[in-house]
Amino acid sequence: MAYEQGSLQIFGVGGLPEIQPGTDLAAAILHAATDAGRPLADGDVVVVTSKFVSKAEGRNVELADIQPSPFALQWAQQWGKDPAVVEIVLRESKRVVRQIGPILITETHHGFVCANSGVDQSSSGAHGRAVLLPIDSDASARRIRAGLVAGGVDAAVIISDTFGRAWREGQTDIAIGIAGMQPILSYIGAVDPHGHEFQVQALCTADELTGAAELVKGNLSRVPVAVVRGYGWQPDETATIAPVLRDQSRDLFR
Amino acid sequence: MAYEQGSLQIFGVGGLPEIQPGTDLAAAILHAATDAGRPLADGDVVVVTSKFVSKAEGRNVELADIQPSPFALQWAQQWGKDPAVVEIVLRESKRVVRQIGPILITETHHGFVCANSGVDQSSSGAHGRAVLLPIDSDASARRIRAGLVAGGVDAAVIISDTFGRAWREGQTDIAIGIAGMQPILSYIGAVDPHGHEFQVQALCTADELTGAAELVKGNLSRVPVAVVRGYGWQPDETATIAPVLRDQSRDLFR
Repeated sequence: MAYEQGSLQIFGVGGLPEIQPGTDLAAAILHAATDAGRPLADGDVVVVTSKFVSKAEGRNVELADIQPSPFALQWAQQWGKDPAVVEIVLRESKRVVRQIGPILITETHHGFVCANSGVDQSSSGAHGRAVLLPIDSDASARRIRAGLVAGGVDAAVIISDTFGRAWREGQTDIAIGIAGMQPILSYIGAVDPHGHEFQVQALCTADELTGAAELVKGNLSRVPVAVVRGYGWQPDETATIAPVLRDQSRDLFR
Repeated sequence: MAYEQGSLQIFGVGGLPEIQPGTDLAAAILHAATDAGRPLADGDVVVVTSKFVSKAEGRNVELADIQPSPFALQWAQQWGKDPAVVEIVLRESKRVVRQIGPILITETHHGFVCANSGVDQSSSGAHGRAVLLPIDSDASARRIRAGLVAGGVDAAVIISDTFGRAWREGQTDIAIGIAGMQPILSYIGAVDPHGHEFQVQALCTADELTGAAELVKGNLSRVPVAVVRGYGWQPDETATIAPVLRDQSRDLFR
């Protein structure tokens, strides 16, 4: 696909099959992109919605199989929630960050601070089920990247989810797993055109790439994968999302 | 410029002149884009860095002209900061949200929660000066949009700045002013492909567009303006950034 130098192109990969546990996501993405006339290319950043990954990894839970704890049960009853879902949210967390009224903000086992541990009911494919975040979203990204490379395309991979933020209304898509490129681009020590040294600036380009991908994925359509083309990332096989997770000791808002 | 249906293209507008107080930004952007062979087009989203706007609006302050308060003076001395800069940060805020060690997180008069009220020294063009955020960043966006429309291009305008976040390392570019389109796209009440109704999802697409633009602007280069082409926004002349500013009564982290 043609694009001009110094510009990014972002497009969704539609026409993907319904995902089953064990589906080879990299192969499915490569095939769908080629079938749509937009084959993936070296240097692409492929942003994959976490629910798509979770389904392939069998991270669906049948709510009927869940035995809620007394704590989950009483809070769920107080706020008109499903006790099984509350139980799953608590199991997926290592810590409750805020529990105010019906709102439950947790820190997941990965270290993400988000509503309801990222547990999702709207995309579960059926009532009575919930979809959980991938157990190790960096490993999920690495597996997909390895599959793309094996298929002949050297692309970076980001796993995305839709999270709320402090202070600002509206959610945005952010990165919860990454492979092939570092998530943060640091300018610290670099010098601006006026000779001032940057002292604090480090950009979380992974989150910016992920948000950009959301603009073509949308949330009502079945476009769980988008490609950002033309972004000059530096290959790094050691990359993980860990540098984005602020340590609690440095966090003024947790 | 050619781009494919259903895809976004994002490119920077380089070659802009050095900005002076009173510079007509819309005219400068239209000319620079045309000179670069990529003229703006109806439907574009034009993302303009706040410092670029601030310079045109004369929002530079000479530090030598500032008389620090006793509070600013003692805290600046304790943490090795410039008392004049601390004084400006306090004047630009309506409330200190966190003041821990050398870190000062404030709520600006606009309602943005950020470090140092968005006061910037690195881009001020000379030592001894600071650049403040635009006084009314929605009005700034509306003026630029009006100038673009007068020049024959119906483009939405976003004013951007680089802010930190809670919980996550790395800053991102977010929207601090908007004109022509609403900043939040709500899915509440819509139904997903499986028949579930979205109950809480509303995407802050303005922040996603702004972050996407940062990927081509960079922070060391002189590319203060970027264009997102192909995003299907709904025209709305009443749009402001206000819906993005979470009211303190609803904020669990302020």
